[in-house]
Amino acid sequence: MENKKLKIGIIGLGTVGTGVVKVLKNFDNAEVIQAAVRNLNKKREVEVSNITDDPFKVVNNPEIDVVVEVAGGCDPAYELITTAIKNKKHIVTANKELLAKFGAKIFDLANEYNVAVLYEAAVAGGIPIIGPIKTTLKGNTFTKVAGILNGTTNYILTKMEEKNISYQECLKDAQDLGYAEADPTGDVEGYDAMYKIATLANITFHKRIDVNKIYREGITKISADDIKIADELGYKIKLIGLAQRVPGVEDGELDIRVHPMLVSKENMISKINNALNAVLLEGFPVDKVMFTGPGAGEFPTASSVVGDIMQIAGEFGHTDTILPLTRCTHKEMAEQIDIKHTKNKYYISIKAPNSKGTIGIIGTVCGENNINLSSILQKGIKEDNTAQVIVITEESSESDIQNAIDKLKTHNIEINNLIRVM
Amino acid sequence: MENKKLKIGIIGLGTVGTGVVKVLKNFDNAEVIQAAVRNLNKKREVEVSNITDDPFKVVNNPEIDVVVEVAGGCDPAYELITTAIKNKKHIVTANKELLAKFGAKIFDLANEYNVAVLYEAAVAGGIPIIGPIKTTLKGNTFTKVAGILNGTTNYILTKMEEKNISYQECLKDAQDLGYAEADPTGDVEGYDAMYKIATLANITFHKRIDVNKIYREGITKISADDIKIADELGYKIKLIGLAQRVPGVEDGELDIRVHPMLVSKENMISKINNALNAVLLEGFPVDKVMFTGPGAGEFPTASSVVGDIMQIAGEFGHTDTILPLTRCTHKEMAEQIDIKHTKNKYYISIKAPNSKGTIGIIGTVCGENNINLSSILQKGIKEDNTAQVIVITEESSESDIQNAIDKLKTHNIEINNLIRVM
Repeated sequence: MENKKLKIGIIGLGTVGTGVVKVLKNFDNAEVIQAAVRNLNKKREVEVSNITDDPFKVVNNPEIDVVVEVAGGCDPAYELITTAIKNKKHIVTANKELLAKFGAKIFDLANEYNVAVLYEAAVAGGIPIIGPIKTTLKGNTFTKVAGILNGTTNYILTKMEEKNISYQECLKDAQDLGYAEADPTGDVEGYDAMYKIATLANITFHKRIDVNKIYREGITKISADDIKIADELGYKIKLIGLAQRVPGVEDGELDIRVHPMLVSKENMISKINNALNAVLLEGFPVDKVMFTGPGAGEFPTASSVVGDIMQIAGEFGHTDTILPLTRCTHKEMAEQIDIKHTKNKYYISIKAPNSKGTIGIIGTVCGENNINLSSILQKGIKEDNTAQVIVITEESSESDIQNAIDKLKTHNIEINNLIRVM
Repeated sequence: MENKKLKIGIIGLGTVGTGVVKVLKNFDNAEVIQAAVRNLNKKREVEVSNITDDPFKVVNNPEIDVVVEVAGGCDPAYELITTAIKNKKHIVTANKELLAKFGAKIFDLANEYNVAVLYEAAVAGGIPIIGPIKTTLKGNTFTKVAGILNGTTNYILTKMEEKNISYQECLKDAQDLGYAEADPTGDVEGYDAMYKIATLANITFHKRIDVNKIYREGITKISADDIKIADELGYKIKLIGLAQRVPGVEDGELDIRVHPMLVSKENMISKINNALNAVLLEGFPVDKVMFTGPGAGEFPTASSVVGDIMQIAGEFGHTDTILPLTRCTHKEMAEQIDIKHTKNKYYISIKAPNSKGTIGIIGTVCGENNINLSSILQKGIKEDNTAQVIVITEESSESDIQNAIDKLKTHNIEINNLIRVM
């Protein structure tokens, strides 16, 4: 068998792109022959012989076999990738936003032009997860995929706990250290995790996902106090991306969401700290498997990009359909349920007037709304003469919980925070 | 593209084989057309139309595309698999012993006949690990692979701790519950983990491994006392399979072994309990990734076998070399160092006469043998008027440790147990 050297064009020479060029230097079956960058004058750690500020030159370069897109965003990435596909180039991308929003069109086009689109780096950085789901775990019917999918927020939550400091203080530290961006919205409001769980749900359940229907809540409302109380109760607070079949519905609706959760310290996910990521899969016949590792960074992300390139290199020139198992051939849209139709356990931090009967009102309102309490805990009287009461519920419906909260407000009982329990 | 239905012949209809037949019923791209069993009269949970007690009928059956070998052992498995390869059949096997002892010959033959040999189920049951190392993580140079590779011993160690009972008591419970075999030697003496670390080392370091040079020590000498003291010191005891590049030696010698280790409670591996397995990989560029899940069992193991079958099914008929990345093409033997040339931290449980100066002798002997102690702890006086002393060393060479132990014996100081620290 003759191995042709794969010619790579790379779009983006930021952190990840630079890592990819460095790592590829150790391989003799692939070489980067062109790179597109925003600023030609910027000094770079790596040298690429042909460098351009017009990414369309890369996707239209007839020499190039594989386009590696590590620039991010949808514009012009969508046009670049679809153009590359029409030019019969294989695609390796780390662009989770693009896949979540335009994946369906990209995969349809890739099938039409018989090229591979690989994106191991788009979810959970260096952790092998897309490949295993599509290949080694192909024999499974999954019921759930969940995990810590964003390193920045996990770093912030870990440091808030370690240092007992507020979200705002911690964000500033994380920004100073380069763990959070100047505009942290994409991470801290859960968009990044939302894009990733959309892609995971897509390949796990073989359904197309409407990213606009995913419930999303970030970590900005988590207080040092919530973290401390959760710890006392035996939990850590983690930002969880979750996609699961609705229990009792065969091959039916999907419940997909991103929000903070209290995770029992007995659960391995609670031990995933700092910028690490973790992905848990549940299904038949495998039962439960979990993958942990670095969720971002120059080299871990490059590991996944280069792994994808090596897979294409391995089959290039030997087959009429490269990597058929990685093809996305399903076209049916998932039925995604609204969060108000889900059931969860809840942690509710309540601010109540310091008066007799408050606990009674809370108990009565919960009872009237079909909510059983598994624990209730008064945390003393604050300076403003209010009492803080912590409630952990048994499994309850989200709409019952929201109704109970509305009712409590009519009694001057306010909610500091509501966090779902894993 | 036309998808031919893959014809499967299965050798062995025990727990795993039965699981494979059940799971394959959900797929329309592969069907089991023949099975070989030891006893034709045994009642079975699954039906296979053509059933034989001559496994050579399966490997010589011209209808069959893929032979699935889940019978175990080397005789006649080696002859069966090599015959099947010569008949141009792809192989899926869960046989870790066969791979560890005869892998080199099997892979050479498979390359000669251009067939795939897949064995995801041979290591860590349902956990995807062989596939990810060979594909998604292909861009990495690894320095270490380590983990809990045997579910039976992990179950026994977990229960010894939970119930504070002896190894012997616990083994009996495990046998009664079906977690350990009537003859438990293969598991409890570390053979099973040794076969698995041999295969992991082979694919991680791209070198052939001599299984006879792997240091192996089982769990039969671990006492309830060791587990209790380790717990007090912040450790769990786990049976660890380990393969690593010898630090400081570029692309050189490998240190491969299986033995119990004290694992810090801060290390995720310490949290892997009962029959679960875990595999940790360290390398560049990915840094560290860990995979956890069920290490055995009918359905988890079937998950890996069926995943392998689905990979062959995906490419069957479309390529001139199926799954090239999974080929084992390296032929060089690893240089494997003897354990006496390794460096470790040690837990040493010492039984010493209850006399003045004993601690001094231990300290002096260790000092004379270049062993620094990081902690020393006397656990009171026993009924036989001996003292139990626990020593944890800093990193020391195995030969220095063995010399020190020999020297201590000349002072009537005996060793209850020596366990390396991760």
